[in-house]
Amino acid sequence: MIIDLKGRDFISTDEFTREEIEAILQLAEEMKADRYSDKWAKLLHNKTFLMFFFNPSLRTRVSFEAAATELGGHAQFLEPKTMRLKKTSEGVEVQAGETIEDAASALDRYASGMGIRILEGAVENYGDGDKLLREYAKNMKAPVINMADDVYHPCQGVSDLMGMRQHKGDLNGKTLLMSWGHGALARSYCSVQENMLLSSRMGLNVKLAHPKGYDLPKDIVDQVKANCEKNGQSFELINDPDAGYTDEVDFVYSRNWFGPDFYEIGKKAEIERASKLTDWICNEERMKRTNDGLFIHPMPVDRGKEVTDEVASGPRSIIYDIAENRLHTQKSVMAMTIAGLKVSIDPRLF
Amino acid sequence: MIIDLKGRDFISTDEFTREEIEAILQLAEEMKADRYSDKWAKLLHNKTFLMFFFNPSLRTRVSFEAAATELGGHAQFLEPKTMRLKKTSEGVEVQAGETIEDAASALDRYASGMGIRILEGAVENYGDGDKLLREYAKNMKAPVINMADDVYHPCQGVSDLMGMRQHKGDLNGKTLLMSWGHGALARSYCSVQENMLLSSRMGLNVKLAHPKGYDLPKDIVDQVKANCEKNGQSFELINDPDAGYTDEVDFVYSRNWFGPDFYEIGKKAEIERASKLTDWICNEERMKRTNDGLFIHPMPVDRGKEVTDEVASGPRSIIYDIAENRLHTQKSVMAMTIAGLKVSIDPRLF
Amino acid sequence: MIIDLKGRDFISTDEFTREEIEAILQLAEEMKADRYSDKWAKLLHNKTFLMFFFNPSLRTRVSFEAAATELGGHAQFLEPKTMRLKKTSEGVEVQAGETIEDAASALDRYASGMGIRILEGAVENYGDGDKLLREYAKNMKAPVINMADDVYHPCQGVSDLMGMRQHKGDLNGKTLLMSWGHGALARSYCSVQENMLLSSRMGLNVKLAHPKGYDLPKDIVDQVKANCEKNGQSFELINDPDAGYTDEVDFVYSRNWFGPDFYEIGKKAEIERASKLTDWICNEERMKRTNDGLFIHPMPVDRGKEVTDEVASGPRSIIYDIAENRLHTQKSVMAMTIAGLKVSIDPRLF
Repeated sequence: MIIDLKGRDFISTDEFTREEIEAILQLAEEMKADRYSDKWAKLLHNKTFLMFFFNPSLRTRVSFEAAATELGGHAQFLEPKTMRLKKTSEGVEVQAGETIEDAASALDRYASGMGIRILEGAVENYGDGDKLLREYAKNMKAPVINMADDVYHPCQGVSDLMGMRQHKGDLNGKTLLMSWGHGALARSYCSVQENMLLSSRMGLNVKLAHPKGYDLPKDIVDQVKANCEKNGQSFELINDPDAGYTDEVDFVYSRNWFGPDFYEIGKKAEIERASKLTDWICNEERMKRTNDGLFIHPMPVDRGKEVTDEVASGPRSIIYDIAENRLHTQKSVMAMTIAGLKVSIDPRLF
Repeated sequence: MIIDLKGRDFISTDEFTREEIEAILQLAEEMKADRYSDKWAKLLHNKTFLMFFFNPSLRTRVSFEAAATELGGHAQFLEPKTMRLKKTSEGVEVQAGETIEDAASALDRYASGMGIRILEGAVENYGDGDKLLREYAKNMKAPVINMADDVYHPCQGVSDLMGMRQHKGDLNGKTLLMSWGHGALARSYCSVQENMLLSSRMGLNVKLAHPKGYDLPKDIVDQVKANCEKNGQSFELINDPDAGYTDEVDFVYSRNWFGPDFYEIGKKAEIERASKLTDWICNEERMKRTNDGLFIHPMPVDRGKEVTDEVASGPRSIIYDIAENRLHTQKSVMAMTIAGLKVSIDPRLF
Repeated sequence: MIIDLKGRDFISTDEFTREEIEAILQLAEEMKADRYSDKWAKLLHNKTFLMFFFNPSLRTRVSFEAAATELGGHAQFLEPKTMRLKKTSEGVEVQAGETIEDAASALDRYASGMGIRILEGAVENYGDGDKLLREYAKNMKAPVINMADDVYHPCQGVSDLMGMRQHKGDLNGKTLLMSWGHGALARSYCSVQENMLLSSRMGLNVKLAHPKGYDLPKDIVDQVKANCEKNGQSFELINDPDAGYTDEVDFVYSRNWFGPDFYEIGKKAEIERASKLTDWICNEERMKRTNDGLFIHPMPVDRGKEVTDEVASGPRSIIYDIAENRLHTQKSVMAMTIAGLKVSIDPRLF
């Protein structure tokens, strides 16, 4: 079975079949095994990949720029805050400038692909970031790759899967504990949602643990449940910091996220509230109760709050491998969507 | 006839013969037709092109950086605001730091070429930006390329010509309407001036339309008139938003620019005044009166003010083609001035 | 004798033998003589070099990025101020964020090497910058290269040596006058200290001249003295702006630096004090008394304060050659430490 993703946008993994995600994963694994092979050293030669960062980032920027370099191309680091873009608030123009139609149409003439990162800090309402990204995609022939928006983070999700599989083999029937962690960073949902959406599709049981009042958007949770039901996996919701750590658990993902009223109450109030819930932390005692569970996290880790140093720096932590995978999965996505590299997978896997 | 521009600065098109401009255009057209040809894929291999942005820009930055990439080289994005440069105001040092002589002499050792962008917002008086650019050029052996200053914008002008020619063939005897447009952006003169200077030299009749009080600098307008007279073309000045749209007009360029008292009254007063002149807009009704006129603009377009959406997104608009041409003309200029690529043109054209 | 520096960090020249420094210099000289040779055009092909600028810089940034380009690789320009790093003040966390362990461990997966620049403006106490750099190095397998910290500036020092040798041949027994200069820039110690440390190790006599109250850190001065004593060279301390210019002097390095109480009194008070000492300047009259002395400086030069225009732009100034050497020495260090290029030197030189 030949998978061809040439020209496709990579905004949400829902728009890709399991076979297509498998192809991205397999190519990423091959790229990791033979990082500087001639097979990909020139796939983007003389080509430009644009990176639009509405929000700053370290790992995402470095790994995307390195991915372009390793494919022989060049990534441009762009901050839209320096662009004269038209801005509207509730439908009213608040800043004169260029429309997305114009910006995207012109950029499409220069670039072979474009990545966009836009998180909750840069938008007025949950979902606006994802919408903006799709607006760019609509006006460009070049593939648009989601470098994290306020809803999805597909490159992180695929990197998580790749890391989980590296360390525990076939993921079918494995169990994930996705737990809220306390802290002062008021983090976005995208990494957490992406991991659950993908894990549930790829065969894992999901336990979701968070304090009351920290519900994730209902449509995403419903989708995760439906994914689990479809394949006979279990889904469980737990409002307790401790009860999720059971002997079925293979992976623990402990991460802070803001409450659903974040856009109203603001960052300061959110941080104050979240900082008090100090029992929501992943520690060695809890990890010992799991099935040799591995600690995963998209980084940056808020040590001492989301997880103890003992766990994060210990042998159960695979966070650096997952961080590394960002490079390989992004190279894979760019090679397939931009350069049109085709991947052959075994259909009997599905 | 062989045209060789090796080592030349590209600051103003006045310093180039028609033959030389023709050579730049022809090479750009060839580069557009065969974008990733081996003929130019390595012209700047291992070479550095510096980009100095005193003012931010999207298209200019992306297109120059992509041009370097497509020639096999690397463009560095630099913002002089982070540099410790000596600053003077009316002859008095107001900030300790490095002289242009020192900065330019050192950079010349690292780079094969340098682009500079400096608009009215970064200088005290009209013309200071262009002077600064020439000061760098004087201290560098590497070619200096004007990425837009407060007077000239040669790469934009050549891209306009290329787009006009793509869509209407030979430009001799064609007619351009250059019209002021209202809006809140208080734009610089450089794109507008450059287009008229080049169009008048390359054989077009020029109609210049603007409200009373929005005169462009006299020396530039006189030069445009002289260019027209020299070749028997017409030049007309119109202080009416509507009268310029006649059946001779092949190209309409509608764009805002600030009044001659901008440096005294400041941006706020300028915007207030310009925003009231709402009849100065290019619309479909007016365009219909022209000779199948095409809408051109250097972008970003201020839609609803300089031009209606109907025109800007309609079949008469060639703005995205012109934007794309920035890439090709800049590759052409860099290939000729920095890498020394020679171009053969037919002298009978002139 | 084959010198192999593969995998080594380049933080302070003290950690390198004279033979190793000689190898770096010889390769840099070879690279200068044959700048675009195939021998180094692809040493870093598809490889990423990260540049962390805690403090801004022009020459360092441009020369490192160009060095990566000339070795066929790509340098990423990063400003840690846009990163979510954990910050502590006197041991207390003042900003939630990522630890150096985590940031460095993840970056190590993407990059082949990393440069860091951190000067006194970005740290609380003298030496903290150098410590931070070593903390990154400890957590990375990829070589860490010092792009100037608050104590050392090894790439500048080696570039100084290369320039001095270009113009005066064998440096054994030559004499350096290192003089404080007045001015309003409150400069860091690193360039000055690095030059004296290296010059004293490589066989030069050192005269150090500064006003009372402008002592350099005692441990560094003691080390310079010890280096001189070890090889029978002389070391002299002079608290006079004029007396150092004698007929033994081959090189004059005139440069401002802040007093030892800078971290307490702050920048404003330091500048006020230093600006009054106007007799501390290198001028033509003084240079004439030297042994055809050459003027050296790491740039940017504060003309009219550290040195007169007559000297800085005159035939005795080798500042642009030294600036150029930054490119060659950095290419040499990157080629040896990152790409593992080995260099053969003649051991009889030592």
